[in-house]
Amino acid sequence: MTKTFDFQTYLADGRKKVEDRLKLVFDQERPALHASLYEAMSYSVLNGGKRLRALLCLASAQACKKYSVSRDKTDDQIEEMVMPLACALEMVHAMSLIHDDLPCLDNDELRRGKPTNHRVFGEAMALLAGDGLLVFANEYLIGESLEKVLPQDLLAVSHGLSRALGPTGMVGGQVLDMSNTGSADGQLDLVVLENIHNGKTGALIRFCLWGGARAIGADELRLSAMARFGEILGLAFQITDDLLDVTGDAASLGKTPGKDAQSNKATFVRLLGLDGARNKLEMLHKEGSSVLSRALDQNEQQILSNLLDYAINRIN
Amino acid sequence: MTKTFDFQTYLADGRKKVEDRLKLVFDQERPALHASLYEAMSYSVLNGGKRLRALLCLASAQACKKYSVSRDKTDDQIEEMVMPLACALEMVHAMSLIHDDLPCLDNDELRRGKPTNHRVFGEAMALLAGDGLLVFANEYLIGESLEKVLPQDLLAVSHGLSRALGPTGMVGGQVLDMSNTGSADGQLDLVVLENIHNGKTGALIRFCLWGGARAIGADELRLSAMARFGEILGLAFQITDDLLDVTGDAASLGKTPGKDAQSNKATFVRLLGLDGARNKLEMLHKEGSSVLSRALDQNEQQILSNLLDYAINRIN
Repeated sequence: MTKTFDFQTYLADGRKKVEDRLKLVFDQERPALHASLYEAMSYSVLNGGKRLRALLCLASAQACKKYSVSRDKTDDQIEEMVMPLACALEMVHAMSLIHDDLPCLDNDELRRGKPTNHRVFGEAMALLAGDGLLVFANEYLIGESLEKVLPQDLLAVSHGLSRALGPTGMVGGQVLDMSNTGSADGQLDLVVLENIHNGKTGALIRFCLWGGARAIGADELRLSAMARFGEILGLAFQITDDLLDVTGDAASLGKTPGKDAQSNKATFVRLLGLDGARNKLEMLHKEGSSVLSRALDQNEQQILSNLLDYAINRIN
Repeated sequence: MTKTFDFQTYLADGRKKVEDRLKLVFDQERPALHASLYEAMSYSVLNGGKRLRALLCLASAQACKKYSVSRDKTDDQIEEMVMPLACALEMVHAMSLIHDDLPCLDNDELRRGKPTNHRVFGEAMALLAGDGLLVFANEYLIGESLEKVLPQDLLAVSHGLSRALGPTGMVGGQVLDMSNTGSADGQLDLVVLENIHNGKTGALIRFCLWGGARAIGADELRLSAMARFGEILGLAFQITDDLLDVTGDAASLGKTPGKDAQSNKATFVRLLGLDGARNKLEMLHKEGSSVLSRALDQNEQQILSNLLDYAINRIN
């Protein structure tokens, strides 16, 4: 956080820490009896993702430290408090991609430039690998955090994670998305689209920010700011994704572009147009910066602010 | 628990309480935005199951009350402490049946005498209804227990539930089962079969007993006794299921009998023979009674002892 701060180095370091921890669980400490299941889970968890969710959670905790019951801890101790949650977030994210890609949902063959889980391990194993990751995330979160995070904070985090994933969160959003895909008319309702996004992608990204702050026992003001910043960043991230589906290519995306239009999927680009979507991104960027500056001092904002830029600038 | 105790009345009363609570969540308080997802989840949760898992959990808590930090609470208060867990257990059980029945796994069309979830709502919705139930169980458990159960006990219960369901529990057992089904030779390994069972069915039933006692803060002696009793009961339950697949009929089973043999599935009957399986059941009954009598007084044993009889006597 000094003047020599380099965001690319920060990203690379953060990713490596998360990656190393995930490798420990899914590669090095695999139970022999369940090697084949761990192989399938590991294939999707250790698949070179951006680790955005983990980084958001870690960054939120560090940014809010001064306003939390953990204010006397070192940055390393804060990281240790939140790392189990950061890893759990990557597990549930991997799970959501596995189930999303299944033939009965998106029927995708390519994910991050590699064959999707069910293409490699078969549908049954992919289904179970997803189920396994979904519950293991909570087992790991609680087991690894018990001695570091206060019980009431950990309960709030575990509850919040399940809520972000459940029927009124991610899964609910997937169902809304499914029931609004493939309609022939070009007229989509912005309220419907926002409901889909809030559930499918938004709830979990919002939780990454809120959860990181909650795990270290941040105050109410910071918790609301992080939740709101998470909503803004999640929406920015989704609009960027929608733009990439139109303007990107398979090599840089690591997945097939143009799928949204093909399947008549509800997207922000379809509703707002390319320019409209880009304008919306700019507004979100301003609002996000403003939320940060009201809750945190200049130094504390830096990484989160960079992460917001990063979520948006993938289109460039 | 007096001499006029009637087990059938106890079962009916307990089921009604669990059923009413589940109806509240899945029927009466459905969020309008997610009506279709709730309809699919509710179809499988409110499907007239035996509620054995919920009853085991409630019974374990009542039986261990005197040896717990909750010893001064009334029976009704104990019930209120454990009811959220009892309902969560029924949610995850329903989830496991939905995913098990999917075409890529067992491809079953009938469950408790009704069409399976995916036959009614389609594969995609069944997949998501299962995912939704799996995480909602933890959201509901923590949300509803927060003000009744001590934080450290609730964390242990949430962790234990995820562990019982995850890669080294139910999901792990399903993978083992899948990779050992359909082999042509009649020679099955008892160790493999027990590993499959311990994961697929055993871990959750063991957790029902342990979790009920853990939620009210029971002492170590009672926790080990309940865990062991759960293992015995789970195994008895599974052997009975295997016997029913051979000796039962579709009407009384509510599912298609003979599926295990057809699919060359590993079962205890296949390995031990009909008589061997029946003898094993008798031994388990004796061991279960002995575990109960070492940990609990006569009155406290009654319901659990009846539940063990009940799990076994379905074959009669």
